[in-house]
This record gives sequence, structure tokens and C-alpha cells, in this order.
Amino acid sequence: MSMRKHNFYAGPAVLPLEVLVEASRGVLQHDNIGLSIIEISHRSKDFGEVIEEAEHRLRRLMNIPDDYAVLFLQGGARLQFAMIPMNFLGDSETAVYTDTGEWARQAIEEAKLFGKVHIGASSRDENYSYIPKEIDIPDGAKYLHITTNNTIYGTQWHSIPDVSIPLVADMSSDILSRQLDVSKFAIIYAGAQKNAGTAGVTIVIIRKDFAEQVVRPVPSMLDYRKHISKKSLLNTPPVFAIYVSMLTFKWLESIGGIPEIERRNREKASLIYDVLDKWEVFVPTARKEDRSLMNITWRLKDSQLEGELLKMCEEANIVGIKGHRKVGGFRASVYNALPMESVKVLVDVLETFGRKYG
Amino acid sequence: MSMRKHNFYAGPAVLPLEVLVEASRGVLQHDNIGLSIIEISHRSKDFGEVIEEAEHRLRRLMNIPDDYAVLFLQGGARLQFAMIPMNFLGDSETAVYTDTGEWARQAIEEAKLFGKVHIGASSRDENYSYIPKEIDIPDGAKYLHITTNNTIYGTQWHSIPDVSIPLVADMSSDILSRQLDVSKFAIIYAGAQKNAGTAGVTIVIIRKDFAEQVVRPVPSMLDYRKHISKKSLLNTPPVFAIYVSMLTFKWLESIGGIPEIERRNREKASLIYDVLDKWEVFVPTARKEDRSLMNITWRLKDSQLEGELLKMCEEANIVGIKGHRKVGGFRASVYNALPMESVKVLVDVLETFGRKYG
Repeated sequence: MSMRKHNFYAGPAVLPLEVLVEASRGVLQHDNIGLSIIEISHRSKDFGEVIEEAEHRLRRLMNIPDDYAVLFLQGGARLQFAMIPMNFLGDSETAVYTDTGEWARQAIEEAKLFGKVHIGASSRDENYSYIPKEIDIPDGAKYLHITTNNTIYGTQWHSIPDVSIPLVADMSSDILSRQLDVSKFAIIYAGAQKNAGTAGVTIVIIRKDFAEQVVRPVPSMLDYRKHISKKSLLNTPPVFAIYVSMLTFKWLESIGGIPEIERRNREKASLIYDVLDKWEVFVPTARKEDRSLMNITWRLKDSQLEGELLKMCEEANIVGIKGHRKVGGFRASVYNALPMESVKVLVDVLETFGRKYG
Repeated sequence: MSMRKHNFYAGPAVLPLEVLVEASRGVLQHDNIGLSIIEISHRSKDFGEVIEEAEHRLRRLMNIPDDYAVLFLQGGARLQFAMIPMNFLGDSETAVYTDTGEWARQAIEEAKLFGKVHIGASSRDENYSYIPKEIDIPDGAKYLHITTNNTIYGTQWHSIPDVSIPLVADMSSDILSRQLDVSKFAIIYAGAQKNAGTAGVTIVIIRKDFAEQVVRPVPSMLDYRKHISKKSLLNTPPVFAIYVSMLTFKWLESIGGIPEIERRNREKASLIYDVLDKWEVFVPTARKEDRSLMNITWRLKDSQLEGELLKMCEEANIVGIKGHRKVGGFRASVYNALPMESVKVLVDVLETFGRKYG
């Protein structure tokens, strides 16, 4: 096996080595049953145990109240962008969206197909470099949508807005990374491929009474009620991706759950922000108080030096560090599974670079 | 490793051992790059090569003309049931559906949400035990939908109807199993988990000019045009499932492609049908001329003996042989990857049982 790379990809992203080893074994043969996890019926006892374990572990980790359903769906956050207004926003009703980045904006575009969208707050004026502090919520609005972490721009809602209407959150890039009160939300959704497993499954946590408030006829695959009543087995689910999520939850519980991973995440992010703040050659792109603990974005004072820094990263076995084209510069995604060792390698490179170029 | 079971599951179903071994290795580390296939960006060069290879191999295997797009989507056949009428059937337009079983019926239910459905043919009168030979197609109908193989009832369209309107086919349970002229179809779709990989990816082969004929605004994830223009990378795709499909296509090419697998499939099915026809204790449920080469269904003359046959199968390391609850009895799913060895073990059991109970 070649030396394992330091994986700073924004998603699909690094997974714990323990998870990879166990998943690799499961693909050959699951649990000594003479069959691979990827060739057994989703209605078999063996897979039934896997999906139940995934749900139970997630409920424990996030302390999910009983009046919420946990679903494992397909289509990624992008299908949720459409499913949520399709189910819950009538033609003449208004939903409030916060415009805090690329994915927030795409959620807005999909919602416009189904009803009225009111932009309650936006940070577009400064290239999404901060999180708005006030949200305008008109009377009668159906729900408020936020994107808790903005992968591309490196910002994060550090306090969840207290509102009197149902709160819907895209947590694709920071689910399971910090302590959070699930009961504040009507819906939490997240593609699994950052903190909760691998690509191919979307986690949806939805208050059951909210799921009932459907405003128009919807196809069965896009109807939360159907998925709830069939416990995510309405059709053939993404078996392997659910298996990897289960293993990822198991790993997270084994290291101490959310409190411990939050501690680690704060420590990892601090180390990187500290070196970025120390040297003037680095220009972090997000406002200090809104900086993401998951995606750390910066440019160089002299963009001519980008090639040099990229080369140094490459030589240190670092991958996935190039910034998104909408922001430029660099991005270090430091999800749950990224080991401290990888952070230290990056910090060393940044320190060396900073010392050389000031 | 425990002895490998004889896997007759209807889906997710048996995969070639070579595919499992290679996929297991890829989960640990892909192609010596120091990263797992399930933790790399879908925009990385490495995954780009995987999805391109998957498309090229599928095009070669099925001889797909250049004016067709090949897509790797999510949501299974069931999401296609909705996407097709959502895109192509206007409120006051009519589509023709053939009612040949459970999945055909569910496709019909979804289509009714979007436009008018005309049932052009049905075999419901005899519990879906045959394939209708005549289809009534009203003037101006938008498309004809067929389910080429009926997994639950064990029937299969052995000749594809020649019609003058666009033909749409759910091939979830017999794609890649036999030679077929793709140019006869406007859309072919299939969940991968039977003949084309593992659960979590849906293969869609669509004539590009047909994909343009969209009748209403649709969300981006449900818009074939968007998936075509982004080459299945509109959002994060189900990376691992696409990888397994690529490996499955590679295996299929290595053994001689569709002509060879069709030969094997005919041989495997014959062996089983022959023993079922030989002994009166077995009552095959599908009409002879419409029998599926993929899913072989039968009941016992004396249903009291079911437990005995199940026990014999279990002792022979056979799994997944119980019939669907809508038909009862037994079902042997003999997809591409099921080895002849497994068929022989089943035939031996059936022969022994037949000899004992007549």
C-alpha cells in the first residue's frame, strides 16, 4: 500500500482508516455470512441490522428526539433543495432563505419553482465572506432555510438563529462536527460524503408532524411520509453507502462522540488559522467571527506565489488544497476524519512558506 | 472467509467474485494513489477516469449510438417512474403504459400525477403470468412504457414491440443480459443492483433529442438535460456504486460481452426450467413463451412441501430462493453474475426433490 495521502478534499472527503478497513472487508464478505455486503437483499435480516444500527447510532450521537424520523435517502443535498419546497411550500406561500453562498443560492433557485422566496438575509455584497446577523422574516412565512456551513466560502453559523417558524438546515458540510440541539430544527439534511460517510446517501432528520404538512401531490420517492412509513426501504436503498455511514457513526462513538470530535475540530482549525494569521502573506477570506471549523479558506497576498505553495503541499503528500474557483486561493477541508497528523503536516508547510515569504 | 453462498437474491444480487475482490481493494486504496476510491473528490482526475471508463465500456457492450447520452443517476427505477412523466408528459397529454406486473403498475401510478395514462395492454387478468401480445396505442400518445422483465412474476418481453411513438423501457432486471437494439428506444433505465453493479446508481440511456422535449419546469436534479450537460456530475454522484458498475462492465467485456452472457443466461435458465418441467410437483407460474431468463418462478403442487424444499436449499448453501409474497412459492434469480456452479447446485436439489415427491 502506498503511503496514505493527507486528504484535504472538500468532499467526497477523508474517512477514518478503521472505516476503510472494515468496509473493504465487508465488500469481500459481510459478517462471515458467505456474501458481500453489496450483494445482499435490502430486505435481508443482515442488511436490516445494518440500517437499524446506523439509525440507532446516529440517534445516540446527535441526541435525536423520538418525534423525529431519521431517513437515509438518495439524491444528495441538491435533491433536498427541491423536495423541501415541493412538499412544504404552496404556490402562493412564502419561505425565507438566507443567501450565504453557492449552495444556499442553489437551494433558493429550486425553491422558486414551487412558491415565493423571500431572501431574509444575504452576504452576497461581500462575496459571502461573512454570516448575516439579522434575518428578516415576514408574517406567515412557512419556514426559514439556512446553510449551516458554507463549504466554498469558509463561513459557518456559530449560533443557530432563534426563530418562531420551522427551521430547515442544510448541514452537508458540518453535520456531526459540533454539539447542536436537534429540537430547534424542523428538518436537518446532509449529503453523507463529508462527515457522515461516503457519497450516495443523504441523511434527513425530520420532525414527524412537520413531514405531514404536504401542500401538493408529490411522487412517492419525493414524499417524506412514504420514506418514514417504510423506514427508508421504500425502494432499494444505497446499501453500501448506508453501511459506510454506520461504520462512520461507530467510529465516532468509539472516540467519544460529538463532544470529543468538537474538541478535536476546534483544535485542528485553530492550529491552521493561527499560522494563517501569523504571516502577512496569507489572507484568510472569511470574517474572523464567522470562520468555519470545517473549511478554511485563504488567498495569498501575492497570487504569483500560489504555484509555489501548491508545489510544497504536493511534496508533503497533501491533496485537495486548491480553493474553489469562485473564491480562488486555497481551501483546507478539515472534516471529522482528518487526523491531527495531517493538520500538523499542513501547518508545517504553511509555517515554512510564511517564514520564507513573510 | 466462509464458503461463498449460492446467491439467488432478486436484487441487490450476486456480483462476480473478481468484481468484489477489486472493489474491496479499491476501498482500501484506489490504483496506488494513497487514497480510497470512496474518499476522493468526484472532480478529481482519478474519479474522472472511473466514470469515463464506465461510460465507454457500457457504450461498447450495448453498442449505444452517439446520439444517446449515458447517465449515472440516483434514486433507482422508482425515481425514473416519476422523472419520465414529469419531463415528458404534459397535463393534458397521454402516455401509453403496459401493465405487466408490480413495477409496471407503480410506474403507472407515478405517471398519473403528471398527465393522462392509457393502459395499452395488461396481463393483470391472469396475475401477470404472461406478456400481452397486442398494445393499443391511441393517436397522439407521447410515449409507450414497458417493463422488459418482470422480476416478481418471472415474465419477460422476448420481442420488443415495434411502435411509431417513443419507446421507454424499465430494464432494471434484464439490462446487459441479452442482445438488444438500443436505437429502438427513446429511454432505457435500470437500477444497477441486478445486472449492472450494486445498489445506489441508476443507469439511464436517453436519446439526446428526446431529452430536450421537456414539457414543464423541473428541479435540476430531475432534469435529464442538466445531467447530460454535466456528464452525470451535476452534483456529487454515488462514487462507489459507479466504480462497481465500471468493474462489472469490465468483467462482462472480459468474458466476451453480451453475446457470451446471453448464451450463458439461456443455458442457465434452461437447466432450471427443464427440471421444473420434468416433475409434476413443480408448477412454473409464467406462460412458457414469456418465461424470464432472469427470474424463474414456480410454486409447488402441494404447498405443504414448501418448508421441505426451503430446508433442502438452505442445506445446499442456497440463499434468496423464496418467492415474492405477491406470487408465493419460489423464485430463482439467475442474473449475469450467478455462476453455472450455483445453478447446478440448485438443479441437483430440485432433481432430488422432484424424484422424491414426483
